[in-house]
Amino acid sequence: MARIDGRANDELRPISIKLDYLRHPAGSACVCCGNTKVIAAATFENKVPPWMKSQNKTGGWITCEYGMLPASTGERMKREASQGKQGGRTVEIQRLIGRSLRMCSDLRALGERTVHIDCDVIDADGGTRCASITAGALAICRGYRRLAPEFAEGTPFRELVAAVSVGIVGGETMLDLCYEEDSRAEVDMNVVMTESGKIIEIQGTAEGAPFDRKRLNELVDLAESGLRDIFAAQRKALEEI
Amino acid sequence: MARIDGRANDELRPISIKLDYLRHPAGSACVCCGNTKVIAAATFENKVPPWMKSQNKTGGWITCEYGMLPASTGERMKREASQGKQGGRTVEIQRLIGRSLRMCSDLRALGERTVHIDCDVIDADGGTRCASITAGALAICRGYRRLAPEFAEGTPFRELVAAVSVGIVGGETMLDLCYEEDSRAEVDMNVVMTESGKIIEIQGTAEGAPFDRKRLNELVDLAESGLRDIFAAQRKALEEI
Amino acid sequence: MARIDGRANDELRPISIKLDYLRHPAGSACVCCGNTKVIAAATFENKVPPWMKSQNKTGGWITCEYGMLPASTGERMKREASQGKQGGRTVEIQRLIGRSLRMCSDLRALGERTVHIDCDVIDADGGTRCASITAGALAICRGYRRLAPEFAEGTPFRELVAAVSVGIVGGETMLDLCYEEDSRAEVDMNVVMTESGKIIEIQGTAEGAPFDRKRLNELVDLAESGLRDIFAAQRKALEEI
Amino acid sequence: MARIDGRANDELRPISIKLDYLRHPAGSACVCCGNTKVIAAATFENKVPPWMKSQNKTGGWITCEYGMLPASTGERMKREASQGKQGGRTVEIQRLIGRSLRMCSDLRALGERTVHIDCDVIDADGGTRCASITAGALAICRGYRRLAPEFAEGTPFRELVAAVSVGIVGGETMLDLCYEEDSRAEVDMNVVMTESGKIIEIQGTAEGAPFDRKRLNELVDLAESGLRDIFAAQRKALEEI
Amino acid sequence: MARIDGRANDELRPISIKLDYLRHPAGSACVCCGNTKVIAAATFENKVPPWMKSQNKTGGWITCEYGMLPASTGERMKREASQGKQGGRTVEIQRLIGRSLRMCSDLRALGERTVHIDCDVIDADGGTRCASITAGALAICRGYRRLAPEFAEGTPFRELVAAVSVGIVGGETMLDLCYEEDSRAEVDMNVVMTESGKIIEIQGTAEGAPFDRKRLNELVDLAESGLRDIFAAQRKALEEI
Amino acid sequence: MARIDGRANDELRPISIKLDYLRHPAGSACVCCGNTKVIAAATFENKVPPWMKSQNKTGGWITCEYGMLPASTGERMKREASQGKQGGRTVEIQRLIGRSLRMCSDLRALGERTVHIDCDVIDADGGTRCASITAGALAICRGYRRLAPEFAEGTPFRELVAAVSVGIVGGETMLDLCYEEDSRAEVDMNVVMTESGKIIEIQGTAEGAPFDRKRLNELVDLAESGLRDIFAAQRKALEEI
Repeated sequence: MARIDGRANDELRPISIKLDYLRHPAGSACVCCGNTKVIAAATFENKVPPWMKSQNKTGGWITCEYGMLPASTGERMKREASQGKQGGRTVEIQRLIGRSLRMCSDLRALGERTVHIDCDVIDADGGTRCASITAGALAICRGYRRLAPEFAEGTPFRELVAAVSVGIVGGETMLDLCYEEDSRAEVDMNVVMTESGKIIEIQGTAEGAPFDRKRLNELVDLAESGLRDIFAAQRKALEEI
Repeated sequence: MARIDGRANDELRPISIKLDYLRHPAGSACVCCGNTKVIAAATFENKVPPWMKSQNKTGGWITCEYGMLPASTGERMKREASQGKQGGRTVEIQRLIGRSLRMCSDLRALGERTVHIDCDVIDADGGTRCASITAGALAICRGYRRLAPEFAEGTPFRELVAAVSVGIVGGETMLDLCYEEDSRAEVDMNVVMTESGKIIEIQGTAEGAPFDRKRLNELVDLAESGLRDIFAAQRKALEEI
Repeated sequence: MARIDGRANDELRPISIKLDYLRHPAGSACVCCGNTKVIAAATFENKVPPWMKSQNKTGGWITCEYGMLPASTGERMKREASQGKQGGRTVEIQRLIGRSLRMCSDLRALGERTVHIDCDVIDADGGTRCASITAGALAICRGYRRLAPEFAEGTPFRELVAAVSVGIVGGETMLDLCYEEDSRAEVDMNVVMTESGKIIEIQGTAEGAPFDRKRLNELVDLAESGLRDIFAAQRKALEEI
Repeated sequence: MARIDGRANDELRPISIKLDYLRHPAGSACVCCGNTKVIAAATFENKVPPWMKSQNKTGGWITCEYGMLPASTGERMKREASQGKQGGRTVEIQRLIGRSLRMCSDLRALGERTVHIDCDVIDADGGTRCASITAGALAICRGYRRLAPEFAEGTPFRELVAAVSVGIVGGETMLDLCYEEDSRAEVDMNVVMTESGKIIEIQGTAEGAPFDRKRLNELVDLAESGLRDIFAAQRKALEEI
Repeated sequence: MARIDGRANDELRPISIKLDYLRHPAGSACVCCGNTKVIAAATFENKVPPWMKSQNKTGGWITCEYGMLPASTGERMKREASQGKQGGRTVEIQRLIGRSLRMCSDLRALGERTVHIDCDVIDADGGTRCASITAGALAICRGYRRLAPEFAEGTPFRELVAAVSVGIVGGETMLDLCYEEDSRAEVDMNVVMTESGKIIEIQGTAEGAPFDRKRLNELVDLAESGLRDIFAAQRKALEEI
Repeated sequence: MARIDGRANDELRPISIKLDYLRHPAGSACVCCGNTKVIAAATFENKVPPWMKSQNKTGGWITCEYGMLPASTGERMKREASQGKQGGRTVEIQRLIGRSLRMCSDLRALGERTVHIDCDVIDADGGTRCASITAGALAICRGYRRLAPEFAEGTPFRELVAAVSVGIVGGETMLDLCYEEDSRAEVDMNVVMTESGKIIEIQGTAEGAPFDRKRLNELVDLAESGLRDIFAAQRKALEEI
């Protein structure tokens, strides 16, 4: 079965990265994965959320908010700000991004600071949460660099993080699903890893039919191979700026 | 390392099940996993959500809501109804339960009906989302039986579903974490399976340190073995009523 | 006219009480009045609401929240947490319970503490607000006992409180209405008293037809006689634990 | 003990009534009880709330909303519209007013209409819920008259309704409490009656100390005597217009 | 073209003013412009909003809230408090009033105080935002006088402010539109000025057809002439009290 | 006084326009005015808002929503979606944009359709509401062209619309204020015009000191001259695509 855009099953969509895309925040990046375009920004605040105090946690915190422009999707989405609440999908996604990106950093070295990551989808064609993680890690990385003088000895930055989707579509295991593939997938999985090849988060869901252990292994293999290319793209963007 | 309650690393907490626990809903179950106690109820409504119409989907729908009694936890939780919104964790959990339980049923055979699953935590000691899935599947199953005359030829019920948590605590792989273990875990994973042994959902999160493929396999092995015992307990409860 | 369940007009439904029903809160009780089942919990917090400071009030405070499991009623109720607000009936009931239970205690002796009472209805068959008051008084009482060492000299506990409903149904004066009687009642009244036989709150509403002074007296007489039995059941539960 | 404003314990504050106070609604009244000033309006809508349909109830409905101008009280109250919700006290009051005023009318004769009663407090000095009921009954009555041609044969109007507060202050039983008396009262009671002398609603609350049956009787006697004067004032206003 | 109520195009509606209309707030005024009736209140609070601190602004602040009684309009408006939010029109109007009234005062001389202006529409017939500004200026002015002893040397009061609407209706330039004129207007403009004749705010909107510079000038001329009469009425009311 | 960026007082910031910037909506444009960058999208829906039916209005409707990316400003703004409501400034701006853009179109020729305009600010440096209007008019224009076959005979498009800010800063009249100028301005004015040179909306606010008629004229003159250049840029972009 040929894929909609002619890719091989184990082929990523073209990825392009612009660092320091916004004027104001400490760090930012615009990442395009095929027709999906996401802007991530990292803003630093010199205090931590109140729950850290009441739980006696020291160090800093990294939190994420995610949104989509109403016209970023095929059918216009209602604007969450005017609906008066964020939908369940938004909440679920921004919690995933936040958990994943906290692994980029040594929160103790961050000191009593909060990093706010804002991921906003300009154009959506599947894989927006993965693109947000890939972009968010770059925004944090650039933000730490801009704050360098403050981090005299060391930096809270530990390692790059990236994410990719894999899935089973029409019985075949595929990498980096576009929207149309995703909406027909029997199984949909997102894998978040560190540049050193360890798993941070794995979320696999049988939308159509449950899957066995063999398939689980194939999906994780495929994600690992795709992530190697994404880390290379992140690395290249950071070196060329 | 001995576990807090003296269990072996691959040992479930004692599980007890009471079916038809509530007076009004079509099906219900109360499931205790150690000190975690959850009530699940399945209520049938003779219509489907509006989005199904506008997306031309036929058949029925299964949706879930999840809540905790404010006094179910060690430190009292604020009541979400008086806070005016459900927290992010609640939203994330009820979406997971809903996705998982839709796999219990043939939605087309369900006809133009919505099944509302309500999972409410009476006492919490870790693993409430897994206990909710295990209880919810039983509530659906009992609900279909009570509606039997309406489902003359067949039943929309396909298969039992259950869930269990596994994790890495102090470097060791452990089954069915209690709250204290969960809050110290380096990796926390929930696995939802069908009685026939296939994966519906796998969600693994590195809270402390990322993990490799070998660990992923150990965790899924452990979950599979624990789920076999949970399915046996579900089966026994259904046969004894 | 025989009552639905064969009771005499001046007869309570069977009442059963389990103290310390929950694992975490300082005090708790599960009270069943016929088919109505309510869990009440008392949690202590070492601060008082901000309005007490700004009004220069000293001592402690007792506040209540009330909720119903969505499947506790014949037709499933929408979950207030997902509706984004508590309904008018809920607000009215929790204010009544809070006012009533503040009479259990010497708020000055309580010190700078808030007692949060959570009343949650598991199964509903009429009289849930009265059962909540009866259960809440027990939860407070048990909570104070568990905190005993802190209350060296004395205890803030003053007296038991309980409540019962009475009403006029089909022209007859009846005690402790079940749901079906309540929904057909011409007059519905809730009476809250202290164990020493004084009135804390009386709320009588003509749903169908206004009533005269003679009827008012009959209703209060009936409530008083029922409350004597409820206080005996509370007392017995406290002695047997 | 002399009262703050020199009244006898069984004396009402001066009451003044202006009918048809507003230009737009079908009926309206402005009622002043001492320094408490309330505007009530009755607006007719040619449909009934959806729950009536789903419960197969025929006839019409009467509903009430209550509000206070932020500057109507000694300390400015926060505007509920900008707070994003109505407070618990507001909800409790408007439910009481709605229940009471439904007794003014034969809801079946009203036909498929909703009467919206809006009670807004311009100046507050205690007793605003009672003044709202007294004013609301007049607004409904005037509204029915203006709609007379539509109600050819009969009118849905049944009877006038009014309310008054009584209480125990400093051990003495007093009629029609002003704010300062109300805030020091040991017992606070609101009594709603029909012009023919029957009780619609009785709500008595021990704020300070519980009370016995003898006191209950004294309070209701006092309310009845005050209500006779209020009905006379309502009647006079209706005759003089 | 004759106007609905027979006025000349450059003629104001009759204006009447009652100062100190409410019992509690420091200053208040009730202003009627034809059939439009607005109550404004000024309440003083001894602190400033948090954003002033974080922006290092000294002095005081003046803020406004605006509301309409539900029955103040021809068709009953839904109560914003029960809708759970203020509508866009309300928000826009109260921001305009707030900006305009801050020009009445020397905010530095006000000291660390907030003046809350509450404008509530009792009867509406067009021009409610202008009447609110005219009434609000008087409420502030009276409020400062009542606080006089506190403002020993000087007073924060600078100058009276008032507002009027003008518009193009059926091609003609008209002053002080009533509701029916306003709803048919091609152009609708509100002009806020100081008593010394300077512009504070001008808001002109082409509802039907855009307009040219000549018309702009005619509209501002007309507003200036109307405002001279409104300032005279304000001045007279202040002198006669 | 030289301006911050060296411009003459009557000089616009550089303007750049990209049409069809987004993949999904019928029309879109990205407009940069200096460092302010706004994306506008026009989406068509085949129905009109309910209030049009109930007011018997025929034809179509154009409505606007406005938002800012949290990291678009110097200090990160809180995301309105997670705050649960749109702020007053947002509401005011989107109402202004909506009113202005309705003038682009013959709403009757539009037929029973709603055009949703979404204006989202990517980078903010003053003048975002004006850039949104300029971008929104282009999005509508492109949207109509893409829908051309449906609009066989004619098009609902009437005329281009654009907006610019002017102000008095340090006593001087200036065109197209950047953020820093705007925050120090004594007077801030936004002027919306049609390409044929007529005024649609004029909003002038004295932030610091009221202004006289002479200044009003200077400001409008300056806005007119700036708008001629903006219309030229819009025209050029439309011709080059």
